[in-house]
Amino acid sequence: MSLLTVGTVAFDDIETPLGKAEKIVGGACTYISLAASYFVNEINLVSVIGDDFPQETLDMLVAKGVSMEGLQVKEGEKSFFWAGKYHDDLNSRDTLDTQLNVLADFDPVLPESYKSSEFVMLGNLTPDVQMRVIEQMNGTPRLIAMDTMNFWMDIALDRLKEVLKKIDCLIVNDEEARQLSGEQSLVKAAAKILNMGPRYLVIKKGEHGALLFYDGTIFFAPALPLAEVFDPTGAGDTFAGGFMGYLAQSGDISFENMKRAVIFGSAMASFCVEKFGTERLQDLTGTDIKNRVHKFVQLVNFDAKL
Amino acid sequence: MSLLTVGTVAFDDIETPLGKAEKIVGGACTYISLAASYFVNEINLVSVIGDDFPQETLDMLVAKGVSMEGLQVKEGEKSFFWAGKYHDDLNSRDTLDTQLNVLADFDPVLPESYKSSEFVMLGNLTPDVQMRVIEQMNGTPRLIAMDTMNFWMDIALDRLKEVLKKIDCLIVNDEEARQLSGEQSLVKAAAKILNMGPRYLVIKKGEHGALLFYDGTIFFAPALPLAEVFDPTGAGDTFAGGFMGYLAQSGDISFENMKRAVIFGSAMASFCVEKFGTERLQDLTGTDIKNRVHKFVQLVNFDAKL
Repeated sequence: MSLLTVGTVAFDDIETPLGKAEKIVGGACTYISLAASYFVNEINLVSVIGDDFPQETLDMLVAKGVSMEGLQVKEGEKSFFWAGKYHDDLNSRDTLDTQLNVLADFDPVLPESYKSSEFVMLGNLTPDVQMRVIEQMNGTPRLIAMDTMNFWMDIALDRLKEVLKKIDCLIVNDEEARQLSGEQSLVKAAAKILNMGPRYLVIKKGEHGALLFYDGTIFFAPALPLAEVFDPTGAGDTFAGGFMGYLAQSGDISFENMKRAVIFGSAMASFCVEKFGTERLQDLTGTDIKNRVHKFVQLVNFDAKL
Repeated sequence: MSLLTVGTVAFDDIETPLGKAEKIVGGACTYISLAASYFVNEINLVSVIGDDFPQETLDMLVAKGVSMEGLQVKEGEKSFFWAGKYHDDLNSRDTLDTQLNVLADFDPVLPESYKSSEFVMLGNLTPDVQMRVIEQMNGTPRLIAMDTMNFWMDIALDRLKEVLKKIDCLIVNDEEARQLSGEQSLVKAAAKILNMGPRYLVIKKGEHGALLFYDGTIFFAPALPLAEVFDPTGAGDTFAGGFMGYLAQSGDISFENMKRAVIFGSAMASFCVEKFGTERLQDLTGTDIKNRVHKFVQLVNFDAKL
């Protein structure tokens, strides 16, 4: 089945305790689409760039089955740019610079062929843009998932809540879940958020794994303990891409398959952090992914002998 | 098989966001012994108290199969006392008061009948006291596990390292593992610590679960997501007690059984935090524990379909 991916395609300056990279390709939609491309053949990308974006990156994405029909290229303008520096523990970071550029007045326009995509992944963008995408879909997609961030809760909470009513699955991190719900306990936070619209909720906890909440049930996927985390940028988007790609491939949104999708998303994220930017995500093989998922199986597998 | 438990038997003042309790029974050895008592019949307690300790608590422990032969009671002296206040996130706390009292010159003396205990759990105490216990054992126990804390790394690191050479399993939290190894990554920290003596290492991550490291392999046990954490005091000791109690009951220290023991320890800890102090640990049933472990199975269970 096809997967619609919406979000930024952008440049990042990144500094981590292990190194520094300037003006490398990033953006939520880039990570989402790349990760998903290992699972699903038809990816319908919706985004906007300036005329400064490298053609070889677009070619690489096209070679992986990502359609560029929904990519707007603004002549004479610059692509979205973000610069950040990670703290020593890699769990927190400072934003050093954000230049909206083409994103400032982004109006997503879905090509006709995109409108019947069965799966939709809305990367972190203004709730208005996310809503505009949903409104253009024909009929009801099998599953609409979205990411968001604290910033939109601060300045556009009402609009965000309207979008939440239209989607099936929210994917946020623990801090975001706490702010959105006003609850410290993630169990209580999840109960409140699931009352806001989505049937499924994924709470990402970075190096501490991810929780999937659905209908009173909780599934927990660990993060793989890694000796070295090179660059956490894009790990959350990579998770979302792997998760939605896995679901779109199978077309199966049963809870059992959602659990598997969370594991595959976590596996993809564990690759992402091994190198700077999208580098590690560009040349994986099916065997790499299988072997990585097998590590997750081994990590949590036990026989309780009850 | 029998389990030797060493540590404080004490009083705590505790303040959490949900309430306050004064001069309630606490201490590492109390939590360890109580948790272990649900698994193993012969528990040999080694500790020291003043003449201010309630007889009914000692009676309760004896009724659960805990031997008091190794408990020193110092007439005219006071039991160890700790007062602490938890922050809103319950992940950190401030120590408001510590009164060593009887602990200041504690010299553990093992009764003859204790010296052949097959399993030994050394709660957090000065490395000197831990070493004194090990030196009194007859022959080599099946498994010696110990806890320690940053304080001993600051003031008695050399002695601590001598003790580490004598034990089989170290049980510490993530901060302690990082300080002991000087490594931020827990994978790297584990590799260094396993070079210091112990064959097994458990790193507790509080609400984020626990990791078991052995011979290049990692097992991860989640913590149960809870709607309400009432009081985290003693959760780490309760984990250790459940873990060692489960091992001592079976006498099996294979990695497969160690994994189960980590889950049972985590299950016991999940009970501990539901009420103040040791309250919740006093009246559990075998069915309670089985049902709780079943929740852990459900929480992480998935079929990767590889």
